Amino acid sequence: MGRHARKVPPLGIVIDADAGGALHAQIGRQLRRAILERRLTPGARLPSSRLLAAELNCARGTVLAAIDQLIAEGYLVTRAASATFVAADLPDEMLVAPPVRRGPDAPRPPDPVLPRRARGLLAAPRPATTAGAPPTAFPIGEPDRAAFPFAHWARLLEREWRRPGWDVTTAAHPFGHPGLRQAIAAYLGAARGFSCEPADIVVTSGVRQGVSLFARVVLDPGDVAWIEEPGYPGVRSALTDAGVDAAPVPIDAAGFSPDAALAAAPEARLAVVAPSHQFPLGTVMSLQRRLALLSWAERAQGWIVEDDFDGEYRYFGRPLAPLRALDRTGRVAYLGSFSKLLFPTLRLSFLVLPASLVEAAELTLTAHMTPAPMLGQGALARFIADGELAAHLRRTRHLYAIRQQRLVAAAEQHLAGLLLAPPDPGGMHLVARPHPDLAPGFDDLAATAAAAAHGVRVSPLSALHVRAPKTHGLLLGYAATPEDEIEPAVIRLRRALAGL
Amino acid sequence: MGRHARKVPPLGIVIDADAGGALHAQIGRQLRRAILERRLTPGARLPSSRLLAAELNCARGTVLAAIDQLIAEGYLVTRAASATFVAADLPDEMLVAPPVRRGPDAPRPPDPVLPRRARGLLAAPRPATTAGAPPTAFPIGEPDRAAFPFAHWARLLEREWRRPGWDVTTAAHPFGHPGLRQAIAAYLGAARGFSCEPADIVVTSGVRQGVSLFARVVLDPGDVAWIEEPGYPGVRSALTDAGVDAAPVPIDAAGFSPDAALAAAPEARLAVVAPSHQFPLGTVMSLQRRLALLSWAERAQGWIVEDDFDGEYRYFGRPLAPLRALDRTGRVAYLGSFSKLLFPTLRLSFLVLPASLVEAAELTLTAHMTPAPMLGQGALARFIADGELAAHLRRTRHLYAIRQQRLVAAAEQHLAGLLLAPPDPGGMHLVARPHPDLAPGFDDLAATAAAAAHGVRVSPLSALHVRAPKTHGLLLGYAATPEDEIEPAVIRLRRALAGL
Repeated sequence: MGRHARKVPPLGIVIDADAGGALHAQIGRQLRRAILERRLTPGARLPSSRLLAAELNCARGTVLAAIDQLIAEGYLVTRAASATFVAADLPDEMLVAPPVRRGPDAPRPPDPVLPRRARGLLAAPRPATTAGAPPTAFPIGEPDRAAFPFAHWARLLEREWRRPGWDVTTAAHPFGHPGLRQAIAAYLGAARGFSCEPADIVVTSGVRQGVSLFARVVLDPGDVAWIEEPGYPGVRSALTDAGVDAAPVPIDAAGFSPDAALAAAPEARLAVVAPSHQFPLGTVMSLQRRLALLSWAERAQGWIVEDDFDGEYRYFGRPLAPLRALDRTGRVAYLGSFSKLLFPTLRLSFLVLPASLVEAAELTLTAHMTPAPMLGQGALARFIADGELAAHLRRTRHLYAIRQQRLVAAAEQHLAGLLLAPPDPGGMHLVARPHPDLAPGFDDLAATAAAAAHGVRVSPLSALHVRAPKTHGLLLGYAATPEDEIEPAVIRLRRALAGL
Repeated sequence: MGRHARKVPPLGIVIDADAGGALHAQIGRQLRRAILERRLTPGARLPSSRLLAAELNCARGTVLAAIDQLIAEGYLVTRAASATFVAADLPDEMLVAPPVRRGPDAPRPPDPVLPRRARGLLAAPRPATTAGAPPTAFPIGEPDRAAFPFAHWARLLEREWRRPGWDVTTAAHPFGHPGLRQAIAAYLGAARGFSCEPADIVVTSGVRQGVSLFARVVLDPGDVAWIEEPGYPGVRSALTDAGVDAAPVPIDAAGFSPDAALAAAPEARLAVVAPSHQFPLGTVMSLQRRLALLSWAERAQGWIVEDDFDGEYRYFGRPLAPLRALDRTGRVAYLGSFSKLLFPTLRLSFLVLPASLVEAAELTLTAHMTPAPMLGQGALARFIADGELAAHLRRTRHLYAIRQQRLVAAAEQHLAGLLLAPPDPGGMHLVARPHPDLAPGFDDLAATAAAAAHGVRVSPLSALHVRAPKTHGLLLGYAATPEDEIEPAVIRLRRALAGL
């Protein structure tokens, strides 16, 4: 309470001139509380504004403003010209309830009882995180920050928003910025070898939104979709959001197997797969299986979502053509994302629809989802169309290839007998599996916690499985890790694992 | 096909030098197609690269690059030093299927059979829209574009992204930008009279995400929530997303009625209400009902979401204190949005949680949703903290009050006997109801179509109901309509209605 505290004893109003906020609002709050706490009883007559002002040592206008507010809110009523009363018809339950107490010494209300769904999340084991400064080794899904031209990006944003059109600020197409959709179509033609119309492209706020949108268009609630096991958890939660049951299909050395999928859940109508570079294992789906999956979709009137989330990073060998390029009957939707290429909090991804589904997708998006925000869509369109994206990818591809080599070499040298981390022709992380001697007892959650205690962030492979048996292993992201920090972090990781 | 078209007859490869894209990619695509269409049969030997290059009149390296690609993809295999064969193990189904045909004269595949959910959306009646140039009279939910300082906003964006921190580009808190959460907390204290901690605030990509997040935290699938009837459709779809059943409760002159709600669905555990200014009717929930609703939440361990989506626009009278300001036991979440205040495609809203739910909400958001993108969050924080938002609201409040007066006056003058559009103390639109003589036969969907044909966009009230009986009426947004366009548009609307 400040130096200027004043008090009207009968009502318990205390004015704190140092408290900030308008004085009349402060008086109004306290009058309201006096009514709710029954210090001013229903039907009681309020002291005159003149008297209140004198006692509170403030202007009468201030008191009148507070009283007007409470009249507007229904706490007070005026009957005669100047007489004000507490409303007689306030519900009794509120009036006899214990008073509101605030301030640091007020007891916190007991924690509420939460439903099963929230209790489950609170009770689930959470991967350990490193305390203090954020570790640069080895987060997954993080690109190199220094490589991205933020100053240029900022200028593009400024240019985008200086004089934006009505179609950008207000009545945007739910599928996104026309320029960005055009730039994506051109980019896919050049970089992925398939042609599509800008009209088929939906800009989304993430891969999750793309999967959920597509599932809502082609499936009914209760229908079944195949997902990869292990896989990206967002795919499963996106399907669940759409009311669709996800049937996990184990990934083997040739990627997703249509035969295994049909054996596990023959009734499935949708396959969500990452054929180019599976997450998290990095396997490439064989041509035979690609053709078999396409053939299933044609035969069974099924649908395919092709998640090509990091097809941009490939360091040796050649990428296979996307399924979408082989799709003859319009059964394949293609998903890509810019968040891992530019920076994660960008949250701009896209979905290329089969042309026959555009209308249904537009109605579904409008009825059930929030379109992606427009901020940055115009800047990204320029960034792609001007060739900046291609240049950025060239720079980072070179950088990440070096970092992967360093990580492979450091792991061979320092983790021998503990972990095996073979090179991967693509991606932004390596999968390190326990050495056969360790494998039976290896617990990747315990290893993650031990690494965190040594300032190294790794991600447990078992957490990306839906069902048992869960393979244990550690994912080591290297894209955001400066070269000279790789070996020291691997040495710390060895110490952490040796202590298990 | 361009001037430079060349052909290798045996394989049907046609090179179009004007087609764009790398030449080797073009050759690769056509070789792949020849295999899939069985013009090159499994096991067949490919002509030598030298011969192919000669026939196609291109460099041998170009042909080799195309062949390498198809070897990598598994379509071709090499057996001897230089002999290349079509792979023998390609699935037969793909090879005998009809060939891919492209180009303008290719037959479009038949439209796929869609599931019930999508068919329902395609079959539902859609409100008519005006063709051609976007109408400035009378869209709802659109603020005035000219009033917003876009150039200043663009500079704030540039400043935000010139040298962004790691916590902004990469490992952002799922609840959003710390500066924005702080600015919102300060703004709510000053403008809404309740205090909250930045830690309790979640930046969301829309009111829908806020409702869905809260419902997932406090309810289980199959639980029931009360919604307002008529009301904002996004609330219902957000609850459905969370697996929650929405029970519509009719709004009367005193707003949402807890008694009516308990009679309709006594088992409900959550109420989603807009007590300050109901959408779309503009009613204010009475103090008695507010206190009764709070009392229900305390007694029944229920929850309240208070949607205060346009509490900023109030032209006469005084706003009531939000429910959140009266919440003694942490049962009220408060929702606000910036999209209607700044521009709709911003898509930044916020949810103020009860402190006891912060941890469960963070886990739920991370597991099931995509956090709001960071673009613009820092700029918005500066916009609020520098007092620009308050100044923008002062300007637009003045502007919208004048526009509402103009619309009321024009409606009184030109729509007498047709529609009644009484003034509203707040908001950005008026509700025009049919004159009693017209009411029984008035169809607001037909009226909307007729208005659209006259270049006036109105919104049908009946579309905002979940159940019959649906009240018919027209919503006329005035915030984005320049003053001198109001009367002419009302005159066009009269003509449209007279022709019904």
